[in-house]
Amino acid sequence: MANFETILTPALLPQYDLKGKTVVVIDILRATSSICVGFNSGVTLFRPVAHPEQALVLEEDGFIAAAERNGQKLEGFSMGNSPFDYLNTDLNGKQVAITTTNGTRCLHLSYEAAEILIGSFLNLQAVADYCKKQNRDVIAFCAGWKDKFNLEDTLFAGALAQLLQNDLVIECDSTLAAMDLFDKAKTDLSGYIKKASHAQRFERLGIEKDIDFCMQQSIYNIVPRIVGEDLKL
Amino acid sequence: MANFETILTPALLPQYDLKGKTVVVIDILRATSSICVGFNSGVTLFRPVAHPEQALVLEEDGFIAAAERNGQKLEGFSMGNSPFDYLNTDLNGKQVAITTTNGTRCLHLSYEAAEILIGSFLNLQAVADYCKKQNRDVIAFCAGWKDKFNLEDTLFAGALAQLLQNDLVIECDSTLAAMDLFDKAKTDLSGYIKKASHAQRFERLGIEKDIDFCMQQSIYNIVPRIVGEDLKL
Repeated sequence: MANFETILTPALLPQYDLKGKTVVVIDILRATSSICVGFNSGVTLFRPVAHPEQALVLEEDGFIAAAERNGQKLEGFSMGNSPFDYLNTDLNGKQVAITTTNGTRCLHLSYEAAEILIGSFLNLQAVADYCKKQNRDVIAFCAGWKDKFNLEDTLFAGALAQLLQNDLVIECDSTLAAMDLFDKAKTDLSGYIKKASHAQRFERLGIEKDIDFCMQQSIYNIVPRIVGEDLKL
Repeated sequence: MANFETILTPALLPQYDLKGKTVVVIDILRATSSICVGFNSGVTLFRPVAHPEQALVLEEDGFIAAAERNGQKLEGFSMGNSPFDYLNTDLNGKQVAITTTNGTRCLHLSYEAAEILIGSFLNLQAVADYCKKQNRDVIAFCAGWKDKFNLEDTLFAGALAQLLQNDLVIECDSTLAAMDLFDKAKTDLSGYIKKASHAQRFERLGIEKDIDFCMQQSIYNIVPRIVGEDLKL
C-alpha cells in the first residue's frame, strides 16, 4: 500500500525523497486557496514565478501579473494573493503569472516529484479523490511561513490524511500530529486558525475575511496541477 | 514579558536566534530522560561528545563511556542511552562521557544560548519552576529523529508550555500545536506515544519498557544544565 507523509516546512524538505510521488503543495493563507478561486473564475493557467520581475515580463505577453510579499500585494501589480482578487471577476480564458512569499517557492522546490498538485480547503475532497484513484505515495508539503511551521497548512495536511487514511499507510509522526490537530480544530476551523501567529499577523493587515473564506471546505471540484512549467486543470 | 518558542527539529534551528535565551534540550526517547536518571543515581557530570571515539578517550581518564546510535548501545561501551542503564546502579561520584544520535548533537548546536537545560518528563516540573524564576525567553528545542519531527519531544514542549503559559508569552504556532497535542495525549501519554513512528521503531528494538519509564512525570526534582562543556546539577 502506498504511503502518506507530511513535510511541515520547506526547511525539512531535505529529509524527504519526492521521486515517484505525488506532492500536494499547501499554502492555505493564501496562495493555493487563491489559485483554486482563480481557476474557478475561468483562469486557464497560472505560471508560478520566483521573482516579481518575471511576472512583469510575462505581462507584456498578455499575462495578468500577480505578486505578493509579506502578506501584501506589491505595488504596480494587478493582483496579489487574496482570494477576493480572483472572486466574482471575469477571468475567463486569462493566464496569470504569480509569485508569492511561500507558496510558489514550494512549487519550484517540488520539481523532482512525479506529480505536483495544489491543495486548499476549498478543493480538499477533490484532491483526496484524485490521490485515491492514483494509489501512489502522497506527500503533503506545507509551505509554512518563511520556513517556519504554521498551523493552517498543517491542519490541511491532517484533513487530507483523514480522508485518505483507509487507502494509504500513515506512519509518519508529522502526519499523526496533523490529524490530531485537525480533529481538535475541525468544529471551528476559522476560530482555531485565528489564534495562530500567522493569522494574528493577518489581523494586523486587516484581512480576517480572507481567513474565513479560505476555511470553506470542498466548495470547488477541481485539482490544479503542474503541467510543464504551468498550473492547469 | 518573556517569550516561549518551540523548535520542532534541529533542521529548523536556523530560523531561531538563541542568544540571551534559555534553551531546553529535549530528547525524551531517550537521551535527556536517561541523563536525568543518571544524575539521580549519583552521577556528578555528563560530558556530551560528538563521536564515540571521544568517549573512549575520556574512559582512559576515568569517565564511564556511553554511546548510542540508531537506538542501540554501541559495542565496546559500558552504557547506551536506556534509562535502565542508569537506574538502580551505584553511580555515586561517577563522570559519564555520552554520545547519542540526536540528543547530544542538540546540546552542541545550542552553544549560542545564555543557558542550556536538560528537559524530560521525569524532571518536567523542576524545569518549569526554574524557567519561571529566571523570567528569560525560553526555547524548547526538540531533538527529533535525524532532523525529522517526532511526537514525544513535541509533547514535552507542549507540557512545558502549559506550565509556563501564565508567565511567558506564547505566540508561536509550533508551541500552540504542541500544547494542543499534549492536551490530547496527557490522559494516556504512554499509549499515545506508542502509536508514533519512533516508538514503533523502539518496539522492533524491544524497548517498550523504556517508553513507559520515560513518560513518568516530575519524579525527579533536578535541572541538569551545561556548565562549560559539561552537564552538571
